[in-house]
Amino acid sequence: MKQRALILFAHGARAASWAEPFERLRGLTQARLPDVDVSLAFLELMSPRLPERVDELAAAGATEIALVPVFLGQGGHVLRDLPLMVDALRLKYPHVRFSVATAVGEAPDVLNAMADYCVAAAAASAE
Amino acid sequence: MKQRALILFAHGARAASWAEPFERLRGLTQARLPDVDVSLAFLELMSPRLPERVDELAAAGATEIALVPVFLGQGGHVLRDLPLMVDALRLKYPHVRFSVATAVGEAPDVLNAMADYCVAAAAASAE
Repeated sequence: MKQRALILFAHGARAASWAEPFERLRGLTQARLPDVDVSLAFLELMSPRLPERVDELAAAGATEIALVPVFLGQGGHVLRDLPLMVDALRLKYPHVRFSVATAVGEAPDVLNAMADYCVAAAAASAE
Repeated sequence: MKQRALILFAHGARAASWAEPFERLRGLTQARLPDVDVSLAFLELMSPRLPERVDELAAAGATEIALVPVFLGQGGHVLRDLPLMVDALRLKYPHVRFSVATAVGEAPDVLNAMADYCVAAAAASAE
């Protein structure tokens, strides 16, 4: 089992198709981090929820869990719900080291890639 | 006034801070498309809503409007709500050419940039 884990934390939705890009992101990330357990966890509507996934990882012996919010905007879910959940998980698992990254939508390279895509979409529409 | 417009369509949220990355994306995109009117529009909770923004653009003489859903997952909002809104807008403005791109979260370069970010977050947590 792997002591290091990375959880990609996403919102969740009713449509199963919603999760597809997140599954691809998980695959891309896992391929580059063979020594880390990379998984998805959700705020709502999809399984596993974040606390459930942390329970599984802690039971399997993870001692270091990095969380990346896969959200574009930093609203209430990232700024309020996630910190409250992580506080509770830190109390429950004092021997596990948790880290929480800023949301992916704040990363300059992600914004630049999205801008490239928007520029290409505008160009395609003009053809 | 500009006849070509690009609307970055996002979900919207209660927290004003939520929109910041979207504003940055708008700025990055506008800088690269000086001849196109680039603006944000929202599904809910923030203004302008999409139909309102299209009303403004059509009144100002736009004849070509490209829409990019700035969503990571393709759930009900992108697959159902947006097409219904665009159908209604096409009926209302038959002289305007609308195009709708796939959601940004489906773009391979965006996914790769997010994967880079996740890998870096896992590495930072291990330090």
